[in-house]
Amino acid sequence: AQGLCMGKATHSRCRCAAVISRFISPRKYQHIDIYPQGSFCRKVEVIITLKDGTKVCVNPKSNWVKRVINIMNEE
Amino acid sequence: AQGLCMGKATHSRCRCAAVISRFISPRKYQHIDIYPQGSFCRKVEVIITLKDGTKVCVNPKSNWVKRVINIMNEE
Repeated sequence: AQGLCMGKATHSRCRCAAVISRFISPRKYQHIDIYPQGSFCRKVEVIITLKDGTKVCVNPKSNWVKRVINIMNEE
Repeated sequence: AQGLCMGKATHSRCRCAAVISRFISPRKYQHIDIYPQGSFCRKVEVIITLKDGTKVCVNPKSNWVKRVINIMNEE
């Protein structure tokens, strides 16, 4: 898993210990998981599962992440 | 599962046979799955997993779905 995702979270029960800001093309996506802020993790987490099964933690604040989710939302 | 979700898809390999347009409060969400259009399913699918584990297929075209995803995206 890229972005040290899904590993043992150090300080809380967040799923992502680190996030990637580098662009990943939507053509590679199988699906996107959005975890809202919750009691166990204080930040929004966006995890993209790629077609090869890799899970990547991406930065919810990156513009490309916002755009991709909005585009998919519009269709 | 509500919205006849995750059942055996009738005509293609979409995960949702039907979607719900009725508002569901974000307080109940555990996480949101967005499945982009793909070769196996021609429509975008948005599946909300509630805190009690229930999976609900919601209408990606509903304004509240778009707003919820955008709000979570902004944080």
